[in-house]
Parts: sequence; structure tokens; C-alpha cells
Amino acid sequence: MSDSTPAIGIAMGSESDLPVMQDAAELLDNFDLNYEMRVLSAHRTPAAMKEYAESAHERGLKVIIAGAGGAAHLPGMIAASTPLPVLGVPVKTSKLNGLDSLFSIVQMPGGVPVGSLAINGAENAAILAVQILATSNPDLMGRMLEYKQQLIRKVEDMDERVRSHSSL
Amino acid sequence: MSDSTPAIGIAMGSESDLPVMQDAAELLDNFDLNYEMRVLSAHRTPAAMKEYAESAHERGLKVIIAGAGGAAHLPGMIAASTPLPVLGVPVKTSKLNGLDSLFSIVQMPGGVPVGSLAINGAENAAILAVQILATSNPDLMGRMLEYKQQLIRKVEDMDERVRSHSSL
Amino acid sequence: MSDSTPAIGIAMGSESDLPVMQDAAELLDNFDLNYEMRVLSAHRTPAAMKEYAESAHERGLKVIIAGAGGAAHLPGMIAASTPLPVLGVPVKTSKLNGLDSLFSIVQMPGGVPVGSLAINGAENAAILAVQILATSNPDLMGRMLEYKQQLIRKVEDMDERVRSHSSL
Amino acid sequence: MSDSTPAIGIAMGSESDLPVMQDAAELLDNFDLNYEMRVLSAHRTPAAMKEYAESAHERGLKVIIAGAGGAAHLPGMIAASTPLPVLGVPVKTSKLNGLDSLFSIVQMPGGVPVGSLAINGAENAAILAVQILATSNPDLMGRMLEYKQQLIRKVEDMDERVRSHSSL
Amino acid sequence: MSDSTPAIGIAMGSESDLPVMQDAAELLDNFDLNYEMRVLSAHRTPAAMKEYAESAHERGLKVIIAGAGGAAHLPGMIAASTPLPVLGVPVKTSKLNGLDSLFSIVQMPGGVPVGSLAINGAENAAILAVQILATSNPDLMGRMLEYKQQLIRKVEDMDERVRSHSSL
Amino acid sequence: MSDSTPAIGIAMGSESDLPVMQDAAELLDNFDLNYEMRVLSAHRTPAAMKEYAESAHERGLKVIIAGAGGAAHLPGMIAASTPLPVLGVPVKTSKLNGLDSLFSIVQMPGGVPVGSLAINGAENAAILAVQILATSNPDLMGRMLEYKQQLIRKVEDMDERVRSHSSL
Amino acid sequence: MSDSTPAIGIAMGSESDLPVMQDAAELLDNFDLNYEMRVLSAHRTPAAMKEYAESAHERGLKVIIAGAGGAAHLPGMIAASTPLPVLGVPVKTSKLNGLDSLFSIVQMPGGVPVGSLAINGAENAAILAVQILATSNPDLMGRMLEYKQQLIRKVEDMDERVRSHSSL
Amino acid sequence: MSDSTPAIGIAMGSESDLPVMQDAAELLDNFDLNYEMRVLSAHRTPAAMKEYAESAHERGLKVIIAGAGGAAHLPGMIAASTPLPVLGVPVKTSKLNGLDSLFSIVQMPGGVPVGSLAINGAENAAILAVQILATSNPDLMGRMLEYKQQLIRKVEDMDERVRSHSSL
Repeated sequence: MSDSTPAIGIAMGSESDLPVMQDAAELLDNFDLNYEMRVLSAHRTPAAMKEYAESAHERGLKVIIAGAGGAAHLPGMIAASTPLPVLGVPVKTSKLNGLDSLFSIVQMPGGVPVGSLAINGAENAAILAVQILATSNPDLMGRMLEYKQQLIRKVEDMDERVRSHSSL
Repeated sequence: MSDSTPAIGIAMGSESDLPVMQDAAELLDNFDLNYEMRVLSAHRTPAAMKEYAESAHERGLKVIIAGAGGAAHLPGMIAASTPLPVLGVPVKTSKLNGLDSLFSIVQMPGGVPVGSLAINGAENAAILAVQILATSNPDLMGRMLEYKQQLIRKVEDMDERVRSHSSL
Repeated sequence: MSDSTPAIGIAMGSESDLPVMQDAAELLDNFDLNYEMRVLSAHRTPAAMKEYAESAHERGLKVIIAGAGGAAHLPGMIAASTPLPVLGVPVKTSKLNGLDSLFSIVQMPGGVPVGSLAINGAENAAILAVQILATSNPDLMGRMLEYKQQLIRKVEDMDERVRSHSSL
Repeated sequence: MSDSTPAIGIAMGSESDLPVMQDAAELLDNFDLNYEMRVLSAHRTPAAMKEYAESAHERGLKVIIAGAGGAAHLPGMIAASTPLPVLGVPVKTSKLNGLDSLFSIVQMPGGVPVGSLAINGAENAAILAVQILATSNPDLMGRMLEYKQQLIRKVEDMDERVRSHSSL
Repeated sequence: MSDSTPAIGIAMGSESDLPVMQDAAELLDNFDLNYEMRVLSAHRTPAAMKEYAESAHERGLKVIIAGAGGAAHLPGMIAASTPLPVLGVPVKTSKLNGLDSLFSIVQMPGGVPVGSLAINGAENAAILAVQILATSNPDLMGRMLEYKQQLIRKVEDMDERVRSHSSL
Repeated sequence: MSDSTPAIGIAMGSESDLPVMQDAAELLDNFDLNYEMRVLSAHRTPAAMKEYAESAHERGLKVIIAGAGGAAHLPGMIAASTPLPVLGVPVKTSKLNGLDSLFSIVQMPGGVPVGSLAINGAENAAILAVQILATSNPDLMGRMLEYKQQLIRKVEDMDERVRSHSSL
Repeated sequence: MSDSTPAIGIAMGSESDLPVMQDAAELLDNFDLNYEMRVLSAHRTPAAMKEYAESAHERGLKVIIAGAGGAAHLPGMIAASTPLPVLGVPVKTSKLNGLDSLFSIVQMPGGVPVGSLAINGAENAAILAVQILATSNPDLMGRMLEYKQQLIRKVEDMDERVRSHSSL
Repeated sequence: MSDSTPAIGIAMGSESDLPVMQDAAELLDNFDLNYEMRVLSAHRTPAAMKEYAESAHERGLKVIIAGAGGAAHLPGMIAASTPLPVLGVPVKTSKLNGLDSLFSIVQMPGGVPVGSLAINGAENAAILAVQILATSNPDLMGRMLEYKQQLIRKVEDMDERVRSHSSL
């Protein structure tokens, strides 16, 4: 693994998916983790996509996050050509609201899994990627535990504000 | 194009799709058209699938019929690697009844079409393939017109039997 | 076939479908292919629609693209009266988002196929029509291969821009 | 109107719809109303279907009940060619459970209505047909009121049996 | 029947349904047919609704059009208390897009039919009501035939405009 | 309130719903609570249903459980005529799997609530009814707490059996 | 039970649910009933949520209303840890329109019920809570009957306005 | 971490999920990986479930696979109380075919991800768990690559059999 290869790849089927997939990048920035971002279309650049997937493990990537919409084949096709864990982000579409993306990503056949997140759930894909890396990185696990404490504090703040709407 | 290459390829994602896809073969048998049948998994044998799709045009195929279920990526991934028309057959699944297969096949992005037939509509995929070949084959077009006459006669037979259920 | 008859007919159920169906026309313009555009309503002008479908083959059309929304009967009813391949475009509706259009177009009974594209997928219908014509037109097949190269270049451009969002 | 023409036509897209559509016939038998039963396929026998629809009014029919499954075009296409009220019965399908049939029948465009009943609701289509005829036939209206009394008695019988399952 | 009672009642579950249901009124205006419009809530004014339904036949109404959204019980509950034909209009909702309204209206149990139109299909409900009245009113039937001619002319005008988008 | 009136009414739209609704009765038997069971059809016996709902509070009922399938109007129509809490059980249907029942029951308009349980969730409706009664009955609340302990023990038993499938 | 504990708790998964859940608070204000409002996240503050649910009964709460969106676990998880009746409000989501929230809330397993209201139906949850409290509070029951009279008057006002749209 | 703690936990909401979840165990057996199997109900044994989730990381587990049906809260609630990656298996239900399970598992809010597999996709959950462990275990990664070779061979065998159905 060269020094410059990050552990996490973020792939998307089109540049139009960037506003959704950027949530993954921001979360990883908060964890000071490196990542690479790519547009790879299963349908329009199948050769580039396949090469990316096939070389990912050798290049030192550990987890791949892939987002796509409609007949969202990108996560599944990357999973077809890599032994790495692949996390899928169904991107919301203007016609079927992302239900098509979700079905295309989550309903993978036996033997080739994709772990699907919620529609537009790129941030959660990144968190799950961190959790995966943390299984062999105690320091990262520590930061994940800290992150969960932050979530608690944010909800506690909300709770304080909303409690004031109680009657009495 | 060698003599032995048929004009129509019938691909499926798994042997379990054969009972559905055989309807396509039988229709083509009735039209005395040659076809080849293959199991090619977009997810488990992506290299074989890609090679099949990339060489199809050179080998002399004219139309490819592809059936798959669930996250049914086969038709779309074949379309990604061939300039030939690709017809997709969403295979009914035991969980989401084939709605997942349908969405995965029909909702292709701009630039890479798949013409989707009904769920389990392999026979119709074959008819559409014949219609495509018939656009440049007047003899085949004649047989297609004849086929449509047979459909009429079958319905007329049904009609005669059902008319007898009228009152009076 | 008179000189003035194009190979491709584009029919739609209402003038309100024109913004969607024009994508098909533009794609064909890029391929320098002639087409005719018609409003033919299966429900309001059934006689005109039937006459169009019945005469299409004799007039020299090779492929018919038909778009409609809601209880979208136009593609299926044209297919009922012509031996030509018919491609259906489910037009998005304001109530059921085009799921009604999709089901009405794709779930055709045995014997009378319509090849359905994605919801609002008129551009892809035109590409599939080109692919159909290209099965007997090597020059057109060449241009189709070129078109697929253009798709690759567009995605490569996107990829270049998005790569710059990688960390480091 | 000749003496032998019944007031109600029952059309179906295939003989396989007969078990469902026979419920309509039986209801009409109970009301001593004449009806004719036909298999007319919008897709396979469009000419016979159109002729039936176009001549229905002149032949003396008052209401047409049409049942079909999948891309269920029959009710809408009959409505396209007759000024008579058309009632549609979405027949349950093995793949999408009749949701496709329902959408194809009920989502008709402005100008050409079909009154849709429940999935497999042929009996109710016949009752609605009787109600339509009864708007100008006081004797039939009287029998309809009687019929509704029978429904009450049947439910009262059920109620008596089920009450005995109360505790105490 | 008093002179002042129209043949058609238009009921809706809430004043907020008026913009949708007014389409029915306008269509009837075009046919010079009288109608009465009412807000009757199955859930909030069950007594008023029941009284309306029970007296409708005696008051001289011939057909009732009822529109409602969500758990749309109004059409079915009116049908429960009248022998007249009831036509239901599923009103589009902001949450489930009217699919809830459609299911609640169309899936009536055996014995008590409602003829459902499309989501927001109030205009078509009115046309179907006219067709029902026309079964015993030759003059009205004549105007219905004329109306269908107008539909043809409108589509022909659209067709003329869209034909000009054909390539040369 | 007479001595013989139970606190809980179990109503259903048809005797065919009894196998589902009996789960509610059995749960109440376990809590030694009295209940009455009735078949009341919103559509076929609207008068009996209305009378039942209107008199329920005066007769001493505290909670009403109502189950129905398809265009399931019973729970909502009972809620329309009583100030008592009404719990709805969407009964599974053979066509739309109970999704129609669920939408018809849960999507009630503002002002007239029905608390919906899961499809075929009659047992849970009974538990919720017990919880409602227990809000003013400490003894019953005690038995509810005990019931929840039983649930724990049952799951612990399952857990013990399943643990033995662990590897090692 | 301390004096300051209200009978009704309103919990929500996030502050962003407040605009929806405030409808419940307003309805309770109209009934002069006290309530407490909390943000408790099943996923982010599971400990706080569990403590709230476990102590609710001892603290004197009688009914808990819980609203959440997406994988809406809050109502079910509160129900898991309290013997009190729990009412769930599926909050509309931007992707699946609240169908995900509805399924997550209503499809509870046997033993642990949640009474689900309509999507965004917080006002109705509050009404049902009042009805539950009224089962042991005759004064509150009287106010509930009055409330239902107000609903009638509002619909009568609408009716008066809409009647004027009748023809003639 | 004690020697006897396996790296993978398999939890399910009920013993009735065992036939589905056993596919995960078998896959892990093939990889000679240890796992523990538990029945933990989010709704019936929330305390045991929470304790399991909270202690999982300390006990040495690396990945948790959780399967549940209906309002499937188990995967999400485990994820709420552990920093470990959680993989969810939506179990098919008899009513909504597992669509309810899928929505409840996959639509998790920001901050607390669950990686969802296909409906009944327990085998794939296990494969994904292996891939996660393999990110820090080169030997396991080697076996994963081998496993993917086996998949290829199985499809090649299918392909050989199906090819023989080609026409000559």
C-alpha cells in the first residue's frame, strides 16, 4: 500500500450525486481520515469501474462507499469485483423517490453482499466505514465512542429546548 | 460472423431463471430462429459477462435478451458493454414479487437503454427480438404478421366458448 | 416506402407529453435520423391511432416510440396493430409519479410486447431505436459505438472534477 | 334495439378471466337481467374489440362491464369507442397482485372515464350496472332496495353467530 | 321529485376538496345539467351524511359523485345507504399522494359498489354520471356523442401542432 | 352501566374476520376481562353499526376494537359516532395483503382518531385495550406488568435454545 | 405521583419533529390538559429514552404520544419499557413520504402494541389520548362530546359555503 | 477479550427467525469463524438486548449481525448502544413481504448506521462480516478471494448445463 492511498473510496455514478455523497466526505474529514472521490459509471464507463474495483484491494483501500440512483448498479458491480466490504447509498430520484435505487442496491443475490444505508444516507455510510476500520484500530474506536457521546449531547440540547414547550 | 452464431443471445443470471427464460427459447423455436443460452452472472462472473457483452456484436449477435431477479443488474451491465439492443426480463422473486427486478432493469440512466418486458415476460422478449430482426428481414416480417393472425384465432376460439355463458 | 417517410415514429398521448418526448427527437437529430412526431390518443382518437399503427409498416416506418402517462394505453394499443417493434416511455404523472404509467406500459400480456424504458426515458427510447436500426446498418452501428465513446468521455470529465474533492 | 340484445355486456381480455367475471353473470342472473359474455382482447383482437365497442350503443346495450389483468387496456379502450358507461374490473395477477391492473384501469385521462371496481370485484360491477339501469327503471330500483335488505339479513345472521363468542 | 332537485349530487368530505370537485361541476355546466354540491363528512357529520344518502333516492337524485382524501370513507358510506349508483373521486393527499384515498374508495366489499375514478378525476366522474343519465335520455346521449367529437378535435389540433416538430 | 355490559367491544366487518379477531378475545380471556363480539358492517348494516357506536358509551363500554379488511371503514365509522377510544385492526386481504386495510384505517382525518395496530394485530389491540383500562385500574396495571414479565421469560427460553446453535 | 407531573407525555425523536408534534400540544391546550414535551432519540440517546419510558408509570404519566420519522423506533421502544398505552405518530419524511415511518411504527410484534395514527397525525394522537383519559373521567368525557359537536358545526359551516356552488 | 468470545454475534428478534438466520451461521462455519447466536427482542427483552449491545465491544465482538421482521427495531437498537458495525437482515413477513422489515432497518437516521442486506439475506450478512474482519486479516482476505473463485466455478457449471439448451 503506497502512502498516498487512503483507506476509503467514495464512488458515485454521476457528478450529480456529489451533493449527496459529499456528506460522506465531511464526516470522514471530522475523523481526519483520508478518502478518494471518483465518478465511475457502471453503465457508461464499465471498464474504468471494473479496473477501479479490481485494483482497490491491491491499492490498499479497505472499504468502498458507492452511491447511485435509479437502476443503481454501481455498488453491486463494484462488490462483484472486489473482496472489500462495499457500502451502498441509494440516491433519491425525482421519479420513484429513491425506492428504485434502494431496491437495486439492497436486493443483491447470495454471494455478493452490499450493505445498504438509507436513501441519501451518505453520512451514515461514512460512519459505518469508520466503524469497520475501527474494528482493528483501537484509537479510531475511541474516537467513535466519543462521536457517539457528541450525538448524545446534541440531542440533550434539543431536549432542553423542547422541554420548554411543555405546559405549566 | 461465423455460420454457427445465432442472431439472438438469451442470458440469465442463474440457472434458476431457466424455467422463465425457456419461454423465450420456445417462441424462437416456433419462428425457426437460432439462439444461444447462457448463464452469466453480473455479480459472480463479471469478467465472463463483460467478455460476452463486448464480443457479442463482433460474433454476429443482433439482439440480446437478458433475464434476472432481485437487484437484477445483468441486462443493464450487458447493455453497458455492447452497442446491440438489449431486452430485459424482470424475473419474479419470492420476496418483492419482481418489483425489485423491474425497477433494477427499467430505470436505466440516460445513454444506456434496456427495453424492459413484463415481469416473467420472456416470451414477449423473444417476440420483440423477432420484430427487431424483422425490420430488415421481409420474410420474417411476414411470419410475424402471420403470428399475429394466430393470436386472433386463439382469442376468437376463446370468445366462442365464453359467448355460450351469455344468458338466454 | 416513399422517400419522405422517416424510419422512426414518435407518438404521444397528449401535447403535454411533448417536453418529455422531445428528448427522443433531439437524440435522433444528433444521429441525423429522420422521425415524425404525432399526438395520437388511444382514448380520445382511437380511430386515428389505429390507422396510424396499421399503416406504419406499409408506410416504411421501422420502429415506433410511444409515450403516455397514467393509464398509458398508447404504446400497447399501437403494438396491438403493428408488427413493428414498439418502445414505450412511461411519462411521469403528478399523482402516482409515473408508477401507474410504468405498470400500464410494461405489464403487457403474452403475444404483444412493448419494450419499456425508464419513467420519462424518451432519450433512451431513441437510443434503443437507433440500436435496432443499426442491427442492419453497419454505418449506424459505427456511430452508435462512437456515441458510447462520447459517454465515456463525459464521465471521465466528471471524474476529473470530482477527484479534486478527495482529501489530501 | 332488437329483442335479443341484453342491456349489459360483460367483456374480458382472456378466457382465463372467466372465473372472476362469472361473479358478474351470477349476480345478474339473480336479478333476472340478460347479459352477453365476450372475450375481446384489446391487444390481440383490437379490431373485434373496437367493432364491439362502436356498435354497442346501436345494438341496444346500456352498460358494459370489462375485466382485464396486467396492462389492462380493455376497459379503457372500450370506453374510448362508446358513449355508454363502462365499468372496469381489475383482475388479480400472479406478479403484482392486481395493482398493475388497478392502475391501468382507474388512472384514465380526462374525457374518457372508466368506473373501476375493486380487484376481482366483478360482482360489484354487476351491482353497479343494475343500479345504473335502475335509475330509469322503478321496478328494478325496488329489487335493488330488496337486495340491500338481503345483505342486512345475511350480516345479522353472522352477527348472531359471532355474538355467541362473547365472554360470559 | 320536486322541480328543484337536480339529478346529480356532488358531495365532498371537506371544503378543501372543492378545488378538485369543482371540475365535476364545470363539466356538468357544459352539459346544462343541474347538480347540488355539499360538504358531508363521514367522520365528523355522520348523521348528516347518512340522512343525505338515505333521502337521495326519494328526493329525486339519480347519481351521486363523492370525493374524499386519506381514509376516504365518504363514497363508500354514501353507497351503504342508497340504492343509487355512487361514483368515487380519490382526492390527492400530501402524504401518500392519494394512494390511500384510492385504496379506501375502490376496495369496497361485495354487495356495496363504488365506481372509482382516477385520483383527482372529478371531471371524469361527471362524464360518467352524464353517461349514466344518458342511458335513458336519448337527447343527452346525443350530446355525449358530440362531446366525444370535441375531444377528437382537440387532439387533432394538438396533433397538428406537434407534427411540425417532426424532422424534415 | 348494567352489570352485564363488558368494558370492551370487539366488532368486525364480516364473520370471515373472526379467525383474526379471536386473538383479541383470547388475550382478554387471559386477563379475565369481559368483552362482547359483534359483526357490524359499515357498508351492509350501517344503521346497526351506527346504533352500536352511538350507544356504546351509554351502555358502559370503555374501549372498542374494530377489525376490517379492504376498504376497511368500520373502525373509522365507529369512531365517528362515539367519544370512546377506538382501536383498528387492518385484516389481511388476499389481493393487496392488507395494505388497503391499513391505509383505510390509519389515515383518518383530523378530529376523529383511530389507533391502528399491525395488519392482523388483533392480539395487540386487546393488549392496548387492557393498557387503556389499566390507566385507571391499579390492579389491572399490576397484571399488565406481570404480563410483560411473561414475555421476557418466553424470549429467555427462546434465547437459551438458540444459544446452543452458536459455534464452539 | 407528584402534583407537577402531567398525565400525558409527548416525545419525539428530534427537534425537527416539533412542528408536527406541536399539533398535539395545541389540542391538549384546548382541553386544559397538562403535558410534558421531550426530545428522546431511540438511536442517539437510548439510555435517556429507556429511563424515561421505565419511569413514566411511576412518575404518574397515563399515556405517551411518540412521534418519529424514517426507521421510527421511538414509539415501539418506549412501548417496550412501559405498561402505559403508547400512541405513535409517523412523521412524514422527504424520501419515502412517511411510508417508512408508518411501517416502522404500526407493524409491532405480538405483545408490545403501539396505536398508530395517520402520517403527521399528532393532533389525532392527542384526541385519542384525551379519549383514553376520559374513560375514567366523566367530566373529560363530557368535554370530548362537546368537542365532537364543534367538529359538526365546523363542517356545517363549510357545507353552507359549498352549497352555494350548486347550479341554479 | 476472553478466548471463548467469537468475533461475530448473530442476534435475532425471535426464535422464528432462526431458519433465516441459520444461513449466516452456515456461511461462517465454511470460513471456520466462531460466532454466537442469540434471541434478543428489542420490544420484549429491551434490557437484555441493551446489555448485550453495550457489552459487545468490551467482550471482544467485532461485528454484529441482527435479523428481525415487521417493525424490525433490533438492528437499529443494537447499533444505538455499540460502536461496532451492525449489519441488518430484514426478515420476510407474511403480510407486507418484508418491505416493512426493510424500511424499519435501512431508513436509520443520521449518526447511527445499520448496513442492510436483502430481505432474508442472512448469508450475505455473514459474507459482509467476513469481508469486514478481512480488512485487518490478510489470511481471511485470501480465503475471501478463494470464496469468490468458488462462486465463479458454480456459475460456470450452471452455464455449461444451460448452454446445452441453445438451438443448434
